[in-house]
Amino acid sequence: MHTPTFSDVQSAHQKISSLIHRTPVLTSLQVDERAGAKVFFKCENFQKVGAFKFRGACNAVFSLPDEQAVNGVATHSSGNHAQAIALAAKIKGIPAHIVMPENAPAVKKKAVKGYGAHITFCESTLEGRESTLAKVVEKTGATFIHPYNDSRIIAGQGTAAVELLQDYPDLDMILTPVGGGGLLSGTAIAADGINPEVTVIGCEPEIADDACRSFKSGELQPVKRTDTVADGLRTALGELTFACIKQHVDDIVTVSEEQIVEAMRFIWERMNIIIEASCAVPVAALFHNKIDAKDKKVGIIITGGNVDLDHLPWNN
Amino acid sequence: MHTPTFSDVQSAHQKISSLIHRTPVLTSLQVDERAGAKVFFKCENFQKVGAFKFRGACNAVFSLPDEQAVNGVATHSSGNHAQAIALAAKIKGIPAHIVMPENAPAVKKKAVKGYGAHITFCESTLEGRESTLAKVVEKTGATFIHPYNDSRIIAGQGTAAVELLQDYPDLDMILTPVGGGGLLSGTAIAADGINPEVTVIGCEPEIADDACRSFKSGELQPVKRTDTVADGLRTALGELTFACIKQHVDDIVTVSEEQIVEAMRFIWERMNIIIEASCAVPVAALFHNKIDAKDKKVGIIITGGNVDLDHLPWNN
Repeated sequence: MHTPTFSDVQSAHQKISSLIHRTPVLTSLQVDERAGAKVFFKCENFQKVGAFKFRGACNAVFSLPDEQAVNGVATHSSGNHAQAIALAAKIKGIPAHIVMPENAPAVKKKAVKGYGAHITFCESTLEGRESTLAKVVEKTGATFIHPYNDSRIIAGQGTAAVELLQDYPDLDMILTPVGGGGLLSGTAIAADGINPEVTVIGCEPEIADDACRSFKSGELQPVKRTDTVADGLRTALGELTFACIKQHVDDIVTVSEEQIVEAMRFIWERMNIIIEASCAVPVAALFHNKIDAKDKKVGIIITGGNVDLDHLPWNN
Repeated sequence: MHTPTFSDVQSAHQKISSLIHRTPVLTSLQVDERAGAKVFFKCENFQKVGAFKFRGACNAVFSLPDEQAVNGVATHSSGNHAQAIALAAKIKGIPAHIVMPENAPAVKKKAVKGYGAHITFCESTLEGRESTLAKVVEKTGATFIHPYNDSRIIAGQGTAAVELLQDYPDLDMILTPVGGGGLLSGTAIAADGINPEVTVIGCEPEIADDACRSFKSGELQPVKRTDTVADGLRTALGELTFACIKQHVDDIVTVSEEQIVEAMRFIWERMNIIIEASCAVPVAALFHNKIDAKDKKVGIIITGGNVDLDHLPWNN
């Protein structure tokens, strides 16, 4: 699979624009005061299925030739990508087969079922997901769409940054969380294509810092722990996303679990928006000066808002 | 004090436009499906201080002659109006004196202090608030700004409907919650001034249904219970708001506590926005067919998002 280019991001945006929400950009004086910067939140928590993942999923599903699409699509995911593929397939009118870990948040399981997808549960390990997925694909003939290590997905995720830079062309930098690296890759490709002066920085939990270690060492590093509160960021970079990140990303920084939970609650209380813990990682990086953003104009992609309200991290 | 007119609402909008956020209007396919209508949420939970109350407070504070403003402003409030007056006074550069019940949510007390206002605590009854307020006014010479029974406040609150109807001129109806009646009055005056065909309906908790009883009987009725989960709606109508409501409002309907909490959680989960229980009252009215809105275009003013995250109603 080829490394996606800015042209792929532009094509993706044309293909999916009528299918996605053009999400609003919100600001907060209280956030700006604390960050010492002017922050622009691209609210993909208001995207369909509640997450940016719908962009990539739409682009991937609607890129399939009809004769391939008819057998459906399949994927493994901790949640948002699963919902995104399920809804994109529903809109396209083809079956979706989703492999999900049994310990995924209840609200995510329910949503995937609500979009009419077939769920197969697996163990909560990369190996468990991949072997279960292989069986599903063999049985159904569905096309596997990887959550991030896929150029169609990466190009689709980059469209959020396209819209953010259309609305605010004078941003100095854009921050995204990094898990598998699809959003960070797409964002960096888009920003480089639109204005190479825009700095793009990935933000990662300290205890799940494989992307940071990979970026610094130049070699793909394994995940060591998958117990971060930022459950969307428990996966490792793929070969394809790592290649994009090496080429287009300026830096990757890390924050602690406590900093993530505190920043998440701060955004809930001050902005009245529901964000997943993953979204709070770039916010925490700003609040704790992991990034030199003094008086800068900073875009942050708010990745999603699919939270289990019965298990909020500040109650654990 | 005169009954406010559409011209007052227009003047208020001119006066406060540069001081407030022009809040976005959000939609949700899942809400539309359940409601059987097309619903447009005017998100005043993203307004400054997290509530529509900033509109009225701004209009009132910036309407004062300078020689009166210098002694400051004072009010009693369960929270949002207090924050609104505090911030409006801060922007105007005058003192704010806030009388608050001791059992107000912690996050609201903290916010009022954060805006530099002076707080005097009182008992959580209308009588407790009013007697404490009288002492504060006597001592400071501050101008009392009532939370709702004030034509400047009512005119200011009506500006949210002005913007909503600018964005969506073909709405069939607008729903608001009703507590003291400031928002409902302002909304109905604005809608009547812009397009008399737009139906305006107030929505109220069953167990705090003084506005509904007053509307049906034509006589101002007392509040019987103040223990509704919709803590912004525990107050009674005033003479002025009742006069506006009699003249401009089409109906008032009620919903149960269970319906309010369920609708609140539904909006949190499906729209990823934090709304107070009060905001969920019109949503519950739609979901439970208290209003004939089948296939209609319905605007709802989302009043605010100041929630105590340590005391969520579905955990009680």
